Amino acid sequence: MSDTAVSVVIAYHSGHGHTTKLAEAVRDGAAGVSGTDAVLISVDALTDDEWARLDAADAIIFGSPTYMGTASPAFHTFAHDTSGRWYRQAWTNKIAAGFTTSGGKSGDKLHTLQYFTVLAAQHGMHWVNLDLLPGQQDSELNRLGGWLGVMAQSPAGQGPEAMAKSDLLTGTHLGQRVAEHAHLLRRARQAA
Amino acid sequence: MSDTAVSVVIAYHSGHGHTTKLAEAVRDGAAGVSGTDAVLISVDALTDDEWARLDAADAIIFGSPTYMGTASPAFHTFAHDTSGRWYRQAWTNKIAAGFTTSGGKSGDKLHTLQYFTVLAAQHGMHWVNLDLLPGQQDSELNRLGGWLGVMAQSPAGQGPEAMAKSDLLTGTHLGQRVAEHAHLLRRARQAA
Amino acid sequence: MSDTAVSVVIAYHSGHGHTTKLAEAVRDGAAGVSGTDAVLISVDALTDDEWARLDAADAIIFGSPTYMGTASPAFHTFAHDTSGRWYRQAWTNKIAAGFTTSGGKSGDKLHTLQYFTVLAAQHGMHWVNLDLLPGQQDSELNRLGGWLGVMAQSPAGQGPEAMAKSDLLTGTHLGQRVAEHAHLLRRARQAA
Amino acid sequence: MSDTAVSVVIAYHSGHGHTTKLAEAVRDGAAGVSGTDAVLISVDALTDDEWARLDAADAIIFGSPTYMGTASPAFHTFAHDTSGRWYRQAWTNKIAAGFTTSGGKSGDKLHTLQYFTVLAAQHGMHWVNLDLLPGQQDSELNRLGGWLGVMAQSPAGQGPEAMAKSDLLTGTHLGQRVAEHAHLLRRARQAA
Repeated sequence: MSDTAVSVVIAYHSGHGHTTKLAEAVRDGAAGVSGTDAVLISVDALTDDEWARLDAADAIIFGSPTYMGTASPAFHTFAHDTSGRWYRQAWTNKIAAGFTTSGGKSGDKLHTLQYFTVLAAQHGMHWVNLDLLPGQQDSELNRLGGWLGVMAQSPAGQGPEAMAKSDLLTGTHLGQRVAEHAHLLRRARQAA
Repeated sequence: MSDTAVSVVIAYHSGHGHTTKLAEAVRDGAAGVSGTDAVLISVDALTDDEWARLDAADAIIFGSPTYMGTASPAFHTFAHDTSGRWYRQAWTNKIAAGFTTSGGKSGDKLHTLQYFTVLAAQHGMHWVNLDLLPGQQDSELNRLGGWLGVMAQSPAGQGPEAMAKSDLLTGTHLGQRVAEHAHLLRRARQAA
Repeated sequence: MSDTAVSVVIAYHSGHGHTTKLAEAVRDGAAGVSGTDAVLISVDALTDDEWARLDAADAIIFGSPTYMGTASPAFHTFAHDTSGRWYRQAWTNKIAAGFTTSGGKSGDKLHTLQYFTVLAAQHGMHWVNLDLLPGQQDSELNRLGGWLGVMAQSPAGQGPEAMAKSDLLTGTHLGQRVAEHAHLLRRARQAA
Repeated sequence: MSDTAVSVVIAYHSGHGHTTKLAEAVRDGAAGVSGTDAVLISVDALTDDEWARLDAADAIIFGSPTYMGTASPAFHTFAHDTSGRWYRQAWTNKIAAGFTTSGGKSGDKLHTLQYFTVLAAQHGMHWVNLDLLPGQQDSELNRLGGWLGVMAQSPAGQGPEAMAKSDLLTGTHLGQRVAEHAHLLRRARQAA
């Protein structure tokens, strides 16, 4: 990570690989913006170096499967472990965004995204939403019709290879959007 | 409405006919339970008789399209007009449930159902959820994967005739479930 | 647990004792209804016997502190461990309710209660809300003005002994309300 | 409104004057940032000029009382009237934030703020959260402990003069925070 690159960290947990695949798509979108360090960090076994990357990030994108209507226990454990940073408001004014996967088309994924927004709010972060109308075909971006973040769906019992390409591209779109917004804020702070 | 029939009122607003069609499906499910008066009441122009039916109901099922992430203005006006009943807690212990329609598969419909649960909670009502796993095919009940209530989706720009049969049948299932629960509570109160 | 008693299980996690104290108040309310077995089960180390009690319960009341805007990681781990029961819809038609504690008066506790309702919905349970207008004095029931369940608040850094008596009594009220509703449904099913 | 001033519009509805008073406090916070045009727009009777101001705004701050667990019918009517702008994604990348008032301390105000975030998300706006830990005394900022926006509470049946000064100052804090963020983004776009 160079001193001047904008840092986008995708902080995610994956149970069976679907969320990893979506996280990679988000990462690719962010990495495609020139001057961006985009890194994947799995939150279930954070090293000191990874916590340092989170603390230094311009933007953190939260990702998790939706299990029983919310993020996975591993993600919740990570979120709880940020309590000290919350108490110091150490992440204030960072950019935040989110994505989630499940077997159902709606699948209460909105509730997971709402949870991410509440988590970001408690940290005083700025939330970046999708800027996409709902796709009318399964091949189109935002085919499930979400706005607070990216929703992906794949049939129960099938692996990551069965994920819809449009869901992954929606993730790539969000990653790019977050990175561009992070560059905008970086420039503004440098100009100030 | 006979003295002894169990009363299920579907209190709904429809913008372009989709919610009416789903409301009728819900009504059919309730009406199919022997000894049930199931009536549709459009909430945008309530008569005194309709308010009386709401007040006398064993169960009220809320329905609305999802517009801009919540129920329609007409539904919200109705909900606001229940404030006096809220203040007297006049609907306490009635059964409540809900359904909503939109053009997107997720379409933030969960937020409309959450709103219905909050409205029911403020009235001290008992909320009945769906008891269906997500359908894996579009022809199956609960194909969109919701639980707080019924979600229906039809393509933007198409009329009620384009609604998925499985969504309507999910509505019928909920109507039947609510009516059966209302009969159960009625029997219990009579036995008490 | 006798064969004929109605069973109300308070399934909770407590971090520093506040939620335990509220859980006890809820339990006392349920236990005060004649013919009720009301038991506290801490969800962070469930025994086979405790899972059996949950499976046999007429009503399950969820409780957790609100940490970072949602239930504690231990509660989320428990909820995730109910996935098999969800898949079999083994808890369908049980009664559910909830309570939560935090240091802030609002403190995003509503989001934790919303999460409980989503969890209950996925299990096809019936949600029982509070039937109390907001108290206007700190000494009154429902002083914080919640409806989806019980909210309790105590100052940051202070122990359970600093909890407001009215919050605990609101918990007792909910426990009694849930037990009475469970008796009603039990009678109805026996009469059926 | 000069060509170069940053424009912050407070788009609000007030039933009995409380939300107006909070809206004025938010406006004062924004207006205190040099080079900011901060205007109050009551959404229940919008003129063409006011719609033009909304369209030209750098930031829109939503405000409403919480009635029956959500924004007022007048606010919902306004939100519905933005559907055309949503369809054209005309407000994408504007800044958004929110505030609400009610008689209860929690009072389901979080649900109104969640609704505002969903509305902003559908418009592709960027959501600015509070950066304040919960106040421990009633005299402190964020005494109610919210993060998605400003929560204000005053006793039922009392007028705007009974509002807590700290709630109003929390509104002023948010107004200033939004204006500063709007200036940051404006500078960045000019530098780009």
